[in-house]
Amino acid sequence: MSEPLNYEDFSVGQQFGSAEGYVMDKDRAIAFAHEFDPQSQHLDDEAAKDSIFGELVVSGWHTAAATMRLKTETELFKVANGLVGMGLESVRWPIPTRPGDTLHILVTILEMRLSKSRPDKGIIKYKVETLNQRGELAMEMITSVIVPRRAA
Amino acid sequence: MSEPLNYEDFSVGQQFGSAEGYVMDKDRAIAFAHEFDPQSQHLDDEAAKDSIFGELVVSGWHTAAATMRLKTETELFKVANGLVGMGLESVRWPIPTRPGDTLHILVTILEMRLSKSRPDKGIIKYKVETLNQRGELAMEMITSVIVPRRAA
Repeated sequence: MSEPLNYEDFSVGQQFGSAEGYVMDKDRAIAFAHEFDPQSQHLDDEAAKDSIFGELVVSGWHTAAATMRLKTETELFKVANGLVGMGLESVRWPIPTRPGDTLHILVTILEMRLSKSRPDKGIIKYKVETLNQRGELAMEMITSVIVPRRAA
Repeated sequence: MSEPLNYEDFSVGQQFGSAEGYVMDKDRAIAFAHEFDPQSQHLDDEAAKDSIFGELVVSGWHTAAATMRLKTETELFKVANGLVGMGLESVRWPIPTRPGDTLHILVTILEMRLSKSRPDKGIIKYKVETLNQRGELAMEMITSVIVPRRAA
């Protein structure tokens, strides 16, 4: 097991990729849609033909959940005591994920600052790009996390 | 089946609630975490005691997925030809959802404007508040959708 990381181990512009791809299985995508996002474009091939997409596409929330999974496999998740999220600043889905796509992510650190209220913490703002096997951007998210500073 | 709704059927300040609550089943929450968000605070009671939350809490992405499900049951989803999302402006999770919580949502329309590029469409910006059975805010999201205008 590698050493836990602290605020001081990161720097602006640093990038991390996910270790493995997330394969978007068609049956799993349809089951996810039935449970959480029952709109015609996500539920079956026939109904999806009449939707605005013209074909079956994966729920954006399934792409988001897969992105979370991929995030836990990056260097960013080796911080001491786990990450504390501060919510999301923006999320967009430029193109839909399709069944059979393989997703991977690229994390880029955008900004870093020390916490004013908690001197033992720092705040890291980063972008997560979720890309398919053709390198197309399926989702982009900007978010911040609270990360412990190394003990003096 | 009720008449599909158009841009003209909505107004700023209008609010919609979800029809039914979403019961956050503990086993389902743990399974979701194993699949999408395998962090100790989401996976089991024992491991969660040592996490920053001190107890088992539901993944924010499961709360988000449940929110999506509840959204599909509101009046907003009766628009003609389905909603086209424009991404999220912000998402925050003020408190975690706990196993056994029952979630419901309140949608509030914040802004409305006609599309400049597509005269047959309008854009509705709205807030979604996800509340638990005690009325505590578990998630707040601001997002916009493209909605068809009624044919002249």
